Amino acid sequence: MCVRNYNNKPVKIFLFDIRKCDHHRLPLHHFLKCIKNNSRVNMSLTSVMISDVCVCVCDRCVCPVCVSCVCVCVFIPVSPAAERLRYILGEEDDMPTPTLFTEMDTLQQDGDELEWKESARWVKFEEKVEEGGERWSKPHVSTLSLHSLFELRTCIQTGTVLLDLEGYSLPQIVDEIIEQQVDEGMLSPDLREKISFVLLRKHRHQTKKPIHRSLADMGKASGGGARECPSALWSSHAQSRSMNDISDTPSTDQLRNKFMKKIPRDAEASNVLVGEVDFLDKPFVAFVRLAQATTLGGLTEVPVPTRFLFILLGPTGKAKSYNQIGRAIATLMVDDLFSDVAYKARDREDLIAGIDEFLDEVIVLPPGEWDPKIRIEPPKKLGQPNGAAGGGGGLAEDEEMPVAHELGEELAHTGRFCGGLFLDIKRKIPWLLSDFYEGFHIQSISAVLFIYLGCITNAITFGGLLGDATDNYQGVMESFLGTALSGTVFCLFSGQPLIILSSTGPILIFEKLLFEFSKNNGIDYMELRLWIGIHSCLQCFLLVATDASYIIKYMTRFTEEGFSSLISFIFISDAIKKMMGSFKYYPINTDFKPDYVTAYKCECLAPDPSESILSCIKYYCSLNITGLDWSQLSKKECVKYGGSLVGNTCKYVPDLALMSFILFFGTYSMTVSLKKFKFSRYFPTKLRKLISDFSIFMAIMTFVGLDRLIGLKTPKLIVPTEFKPTRPDRGWIVLPFGKNPWWVYLASFVPALLVTILIFMDQQISAVIVNRKENKLRKGCGYHLDLFWVGVLMAACSFLGLPWYVAATVISIAHIDSLKMESESSAPGEQPQFLGVREQRLTGILVFVLTGVSIFLAPILQFIPMPVLYGVFLYMGVASLSGIQFWERIKLYMMPSKYQPDFPFLRHVPLRRVHLFTLVQIICLAVLWVLKSTVLAILFPVMILGLLVVRKMLDMVFSQHDLAWIDDILPGKDKKKEKKKKGDKDDTKKKDKKKGRSDDSEDEVRHVRFYCHQLAGLEKNNSC
Amino acid sequence: MCVRNYNNKPVKIFLFDIRKCDHHRLPLHHFLKCIKNNSRVNMSLTSVMISDVCVCVCDRCVCPVCVSCVCVCVFIPVSPAAERLRYILGEEDDMPTPTLFTEMDTLQQDGDELEWKESARWVKFEEKVEEGGERWSKPHVSTLSLHSLFELRTCIQTGTVLLDLEGYSLPQIVDEIIEQQVDEGMLSPDLREKISFVLLRKHRHQTKKPIHRSLADMGKASGGGARECPSALWSSHAQSRSMNDISDTPSTDQLRNKFMKKIPRDAEASNVLVGEVDFLDKPFVAFVRLAQATTLGGLTEVPVPTRFLFILLGPTGKAKSYNQIGRAIATLMVDDLFSDVAYKARDREDLIAGIDEFLDEVIVLPPGEWDPKIRIEPPKKLGQPNGAAGGGGGLAEDEEMPVAHELGEELAHTGRFCGGLFLDIKRKIPWLLSDFYEGFHIQSISAVLFIYLGCITNAITFGGLLGDATDNYQGVMESFLGTALSGTVFCLFSGQPLIILSSTGPILIFEKLLFEFSKNNGIDYMELRLWIGIHSCLQCFLLVATDASYIIKYMTRFTEEGFSSLISFIFISDAIKKMMGSFKYYPINTDFKPDYVTAYKCECLAPDPSESILSCIKYYCSLNITGLDWSQLSKKECVKYGGSLVGNTCKYVPDLALMSFILFFGTYSMTVSLKKFKFSRYFPTKLRKLISDFSIFMAIMTFVGLDRLIGLKTPKLIVPTEFKPTRPDRGWIVLPFGKNPWWVYLASFVPALLVTILIFMDQQISAVIVNRKENKLRKGCGYHLDLFWVGVLMAACSFLGLPWYVAATVISIAHIDSLKMESESSAPGEQPQFLGVREQRLTGILVFVLTGVSIFLAPILQFIPMPVLYGVFLYMGVASLSGIQFWERIKLYMMPSKYQPDFPFLRHVPLRRVHLFTLVQIICLAVLWVLKSTVLAILFPVMILGLLVVRKMLDMVFSQHDLAWIDDILPGKDKKKEKKKKGDKDDTKKKDKKKGRSDDSEDEVRHVRFYCHQLAGLEKNNSC
Repeated sequence: MCVRNYNNKPVKIFLFDIRKCDHHRLPLHHFLKCIKNNSRVNMSLTSVMISDVCVCVCDRCVCPVCVSCVCVCVFIPVSPAAERLRYILGEEDDMPTPTLFTEMDTLQQDGDELEWKESARWVKFEEKVEEGGERWSKPHVSTLSLHSLFELRTCIQTGTVLLDLEGYSLPQIVDEIIEQQVDEGMLSPDLREKISFVLLRKHRHQTKKPIHRSLADMGKASGGGARECPSALWSSHAQSRSMNDISDTPSTDQLRNKFMKKIPRDAEASNVLVGEVDFLDKPFVAFVRLAQATTLGGLTEVPVPTRFLFILLGPTGKAKSYNQIGRAIATLMVDDLFSDVAYKARDREDLIAGIDEFLDEVIVLPPGEWDPKIRIEPPKKLGQPNGAAGGGGGLAEDEEMPVAHELGEELAHTGRFCGGLFLDIKRKIPWLLSDFYEGFHIQSISAVLFIYLGCITNAITFGGLLGDATDNYQGVMESFLGTALSGTVFCLFSGQPLIILSSTGPILIFEKLLFEFSKNNGIDYMELRLWIGIHSCLQCFLLVATDASYIIKYMTRFTEEGFSSLISFIFISDAIKKMMGSFKYYPINTDFKPDYVTAYKCECLAPDPSESILSCIKYYCSLNITGLDWSQLSKKECVKYGGSLVGNTCKYVPDLALMSFILFFGTYSMTVSLKKFKFSRYFPTKLRKLISDFSIFMAIMTFVGLDRLIGLKTPKLIVPTEFKPTRPDRGWIVLPFGKNPWWVYLASFVPALLVTILIFMDQQISAVIVNRKENKLRKGCGYHLDLFWVGVLMAACSFLGLPWYVAATVISIAHIDSLKMESESSAPGEQPQFLGVREQRLTGILVFVLTGVSIFLAPILQFIPMPVLYGVFLYMGVASLSGIQFWERIKLYMMPSKYQPDFPFLRHVPLRRVHLFTLVQIICLAVLWVLKSTVLAILFPVMILGLLVVRKMLDMVFSQHDLAWIDDILPGKDKKKEKKKKGDKDDTKKKDKKKGRSDDSEDEVRHVRFYCHQLAGLEKNNSC
Repeated sequence: MCVRNYNNKPVKIFLFDIRKCDHHRLPLHHFLKCIKNNSRVNMSLTSVMISDVCVCVCDRCVCPVCVSCVCVCVFIPVSPAAERLRYILGEEDDMPTPTLFTEMDTLQQDGDELEWKESARWVKFEEKVEEGGERWSKPHVSTLSLHSLFELRTCIQTGTVLLDLEGYSLPQIVDEIIEQQVDEGMLSPDLREKISFVLLRKHRHQTKKPIHRSLADMGKASGGGARECPSALWSSHAQSRSMNDISDTPSTDQLRNKFMKKIPRDAEASNVLVGEVDFLDKPFVAFVRLAQATTLGGLTEVPVPTRFLFILLGPTGKAKSYNQIGRAIATLMVDDLFSDVAYKARDREDLIAGIDEFLDEVIVLPPGEWDPKIRIEPPKKLGQPNGAAGGGGGLAEDEEMPVAHELGEELAHTGRFCGGLFLDIKRKIPWLLSDFYEGFHIQSISAVLFIYLGCITNAITFGGLLGDATDNYQGVMESFLGTALSGTVFCLFSGQPLIILSSTGPILIFEKLLFEFSKNNGIDYMELRLWIGIHSCLQCFLLVATDASYIIKYMTRFTEEGFSSLISFIFISDAIKKMMGSFKYYPINTDFKPDYVTAYKCECLAPDPSESILSCIKYYCSLNITGLDWSQLSKKECVKYGGSLVGNTCKYVPDLALMSFILFFGTYSMTVSLKKFKFSRYFPTKLRKLISDFSIFMAIMTFVGLDRLIGLKTPKLIVPTEFKPTRPDRGWIVLPFGKNPWWVYLASFVPALLVTILIFMDQQISAVIVNRKENKLRKGCGYHLDLFWVGVLMAACSFLGLPWYVAATVISIAHIDSLKMESESSAPGEQPQFLGVREQRLTGILVFVLTGVSIFLAPILQFIPMPVLYGVFLYMGVASLSGIQFWERIKLYMMPSKYQPDFPFLRHVPLRRVHLFTLVQIICLAVLWVLKSTVLAILFPVMILGLLVVRKMLDMVFSQHDLAWIDDILPGKDKKKEKKKKGDKDDTKKKDKKKGRSDDSEDEVRHVRFYCHQLAGLEKNNSC
């Protein structure tokens, strides 16, 4: 045969898969027969060798249906143990075995009495009772000695094995075991009583605090010694056979044990009892599987029925060794495969085969390199967002190439009219109800508060800027109203309600240019804008109808991260700029000397009479200017009435700038530290999570409080309080006709095109970022539906004279982050897993309803200082950078290679290639940044398209292999690979089914075992 | 025999130790004979059972010298492998074997050529070449599969083993191996050429970058495939036997390899060559040990001579498996024990025994609980100060009780006159020279700057306070001079020059009370103070002469940490108080409205004429008051001349308070973050260490710069610039007689006693803290010598009218922290170890000389704002808290038990006991804190004595076991245990000799092996 096993293990041949023939699966028996008939099959070796497993292509076996395809078979060396397991595990593969909770009790003497004391427990990882500390150790990986595993093997080989015993109570089970041993001559009959007595001592679990002890240890140096069982102690009791300490029913302690919630509901228990007694001269070993899981009174810490029982009693002097054996069997019992074996074993040999298989899979640490005293923490789960998300973070996952960039069926080009839109609607309708009731959760409150504050800050900022740019045609009031209207409608009906709509920079610049253009050319701004909106809306509909969002497929990590980093940088720089602005707005008098306070003043002097008359003519002739007491006027009044300000403090404002800085920086850093608080050791997890979820809210409240406390007149949030347009000379509705000549209605098509591109890019890139695979969204997305509503809102806003809205990347990411869910109850030591995002429409709707209502909330909101909100902005920008691989790669520049994190792409792509790629990205961003600051900003969306071109060109500089790791492969480049990927994916699914045990391409033994399972299944299905 | 081995392994009896007889070691042969003669020795079993090892006391064997003592013997089950190893390893135990550097090369095809490519290397941990990333992986623990170890065993069993081969070049060695195989019939002669050809291909090491490749991979999706050796490639070359690619001498690449510094100088190499070729049908295996380590040309990455060679060539198709075998042998070669075995093995069987022993010791991870893909980071070394020092931090060390509180011989009560003092001098003299030249190091500069700034801040602060308290009899000038004088003298001559002298709070309070007393009673303050100083000095001499520092032995962690926490809290609270003071000193006008700037003024109004005459009479009649322009006066002048300040800004000072806060908080938080920067991933280690060392300096410079930039008149450091006493009416020398009545000279004995107690406690507790075992000081300390000099300086300062000085805890700790050394070069992956403190006198002397010179540095120092220095104070206080176990225990209150760090004391002492202990400490501190704030502060040292009493009483509440873990055991309580401890210590030393392989009480196999070594040694020594 093709494989000669190095160890001369027997080689078995099995059919594995028929890869080449996709349409018609070759009947397995046909292939098997072919191999049987030809002892020397004419086979060509494929070049792929996966460790011991040899993949061959059989030339003779052609698919009888489509004659062209050939079969692939796999030759696997199978150990006798594996073969045995394959047999028993293949029997009923469909019924999963229950999870096992294992408890190990050791025999100890407490005072005059013998008792079983819980010494360790396992759900998935080991928790040890720390004798002295009277507490549970942290869950850790059970490190065993090879020795103890071999000793355990001997124990199972020589001890009593009772499978499917009908047991209903512990005394009866013990009797059965002893009978068996006596029958087999392994135990002298006169020891019956003694063993039975020992085994029926009461069990003390760690939940019960030994009260007498805390009193007793005053002043005595107990040290937890005297744990071995001394001789002749129990003999006095041994006569009374009836003395059975174990209660028949679980105690209240057991029932009330909080630990129960860490154990799956269907779990069964396995109890390991280990101890030394002095009447035995050889060990007494029994492994029992009950036919039915039975609650054996106070045996187990939790009220879980016992299925397995392992007993090891031995002569004195080897307690440590027995302990190790107990730990070994306990660890085996919680092993996925061995517990399967234990449930299905037919005899002793099956169990031994199970141990052998376990041994074959075991990972070995060399003693010199590892200190066995260190408890190994449970491994972090993969795919969890620990710091660096986006496939860039975490530990190296696979040696395989990452799965190609797939945006899923949502972006498939249907080719039908509105095909994508209808699919989107069809996809979203089933979730409609759950979109609301899933919003009822405490987390939603913090999310709403967080996003609400972000939204109104945004609304105020952009409102103010728009007001400046358009001479108050659109002001803060319009901004609030527009945000509320668009947001609510979008969150109610869109395909992806997690997206938050907002004004964005490019739109602002567009409006500014448009206003200037119309002012200069005598065209009515509002009417022109309305027509642009209408055109743009229609163009959007066209894009929706033709499934144009399809081109988003060409957006890889390169473009996506470039765009979102740019937006993040803009956020950060805006926050800092605004902050710095307050130093300009409230200049500090750096020449101030406290001693010369008498020299500082600012006085309002009356103007020259001649000048004052002029100013009077201009504005305030009705006022009797001569009657004014000039020194009583405020600064503004003084200027208003034409007075002149004289003095050395006139242009300075004390304290406000520095106070603003403290508020700004304080809010930011407090938010950061509270967010991090989740990972600290203090307080219970739930409280920490709460603090972390509400970190922004708490930081805002703290600094609002501080601001109130100090009482300085820092700039506050100003919310419009009256419901009327900012500019008194416009109404709420813009009429489409009448003010501009007719050709303007048509010509506005051109600027509308620009707006459409802008909106399309902004909207869809944000959507792609929100819909990232890493966010694990279940409810699917709706690019076409989203664009449809954006178009509708565009038109609506134009009619009402409100600003235009589009998806805002940073706030949308913040929205998602604040709605992330993690698994709560899991086995001790298992890391909580990122489950996905609380996908619902409620938070979004609430945010925007609140924004609308904010007009009435002004009395409350007016306490919030602006610098606090800038701090929140800064945090948003920084936080949205942290999840980006691009950012991680930038950091690599500053790290010497030996300190670099173990990113998967670094294992597979040379560092200088990674650096080159990052450099290209940085240059692109720098160019965009510079352009953004000029008038060309209006071409922003077009520049994003430029990024796509750059990415396309990178295909010529980087190999597809490298790109697959750092970026994604463009569609069309990986036709072949995609197929392979699919195969891999199926594999992965199967692996997942095997309770997550992972497959290591370096570890051939594992492979064997894995295939073994699969083959067992295959063979059964095909009955050959 | 007493031990029946569970596995029926053979049981051997060996003499282990004779414990009971301390004076006369029982001749070993006597004991052995005794056992031999009595096949059934009458032995009583001791109750201590250490896993498999049984410790017995033989009643018959009595010590022939002192008949009373008995012998102890140890029974150990020995496996055949262990027995064999015991034999070979016992041979020449004295000569340590060199460290092995192991390199694994795999056969690969690059283009048309075959070559050996380096794939991994080991110094202590594994570093893998990451093919795709073209870089070394991080050092990690080699995780092996059990399977590969068994396969390796088979390889060694069946392959060629050549020990002590005379080899001088690779071709010759290869020839010898092939000859041997052909001779033994394992290799057909016609394969000679081919194998030789393959083995002599050139070696490519990871240092060499494949240049052609970086060009080639443009646009091609190589993915690092095509690494297997295809068939028939080399056959064309195989004819030319002469083609030997390997150079005879090391290349420049090798010689220049920077990695060399990571390898110890005496190291030798072992080369592992692994590959697959298609002309073999069974594997070709050879293990070669050369008689002399020889540099075999370009074989090894570094120019280290090769001692071992392992070759595995096999048929194609199993590359992964061969790779695993190669990794297994490489891991074995760097194992301490196996490398010993490899050096001393006499034959194949010895090697196999070595593998078996390795297997017996191996740590096993269950496959279900651990993901084998995770690379395990090398374990952190124990005893390293990672975060929480003081025995409280780090991972759990031992299951044994901690070593008792020992302050060493320095505090032994000699009973002779000045015995301790002479011992101190004797101890310090040999170090005198090194105390100076060891100070020349870059680190010293940062330490000097740091401590200098601390010292002058302290001098200024206390100087100012003293000036207030004593009506300027001692002011800032005296403070500077006294600090410089006392500090320099102390650092030059003291027993522990790392201690920094400073004014302390209690002394300040004493001076204040003394001044008030003398003022009220008409006694001359300076003369009284001089006499108190003289008395106190004499009392100190008395304490020195009688070795009274001995009582410091009763100071356990409880007292020590209580004291130093208190001092830290005082530092922190002082820093914050001072900071808050600036809000009082520079009140903020919170009613300021920018718009009403015109309404704010502060004017100086002339007083009523009647009043002005009065004031004139009082002070300034010479001035022509009527000619004053009142509005031009400054605030101070206005008040001086009796004018009244009128206006709403008079009592406010803008900006300064907030700016002070920013400087204060900025300095503190920047220092903290820069200190932490050492643990970040950015920049090379050295740069990071530099940044961390100079963190305080950099923070100060940054914020001094910021202050300059903004230019506000923040309060600055004011240094006296003229050398004259603060109070003009006193000279530099205080005369002892003349001003007070004679009885005052005698009566001053009583207050002197108080001062002496105060100084003694303050000084010695600080010394104990500095001399802590954790600081690993080598040069010993000198409690008596220190006290002697403090006494001398006391008298000197009294004569000069300078303040008194005593050791300052916080600054001394900061001094030590800034001088800590860590090991630099170690095997990749090994943690740098804390080596100790740069003990020398230079930094201290420089600090104080600089302090003295500061009077001339005023032009530079005047730029430093006081808030920046308060920030440094805050940092000092917080940093000195962080190393304290008490503080760690306080934090435990807020941690749910499952998140608590794995402190050793938590494993052994119930949490509620720990909490109780902490609570007692907190209450004690709270009481001290409250008392400190009252007049009772003068009794501070007596209160510290009170702590000792509380600690003594705790003996009644807590068991000695608990106290041993949380605190220390008081002297006299642990006579018995101390002895045991010594035994343990010796054990530890022996263990350390075995290159730090640790002994786990839970792992019996390990014990066997360890004893085995020892026994081998013992037996040899006694030739029986």
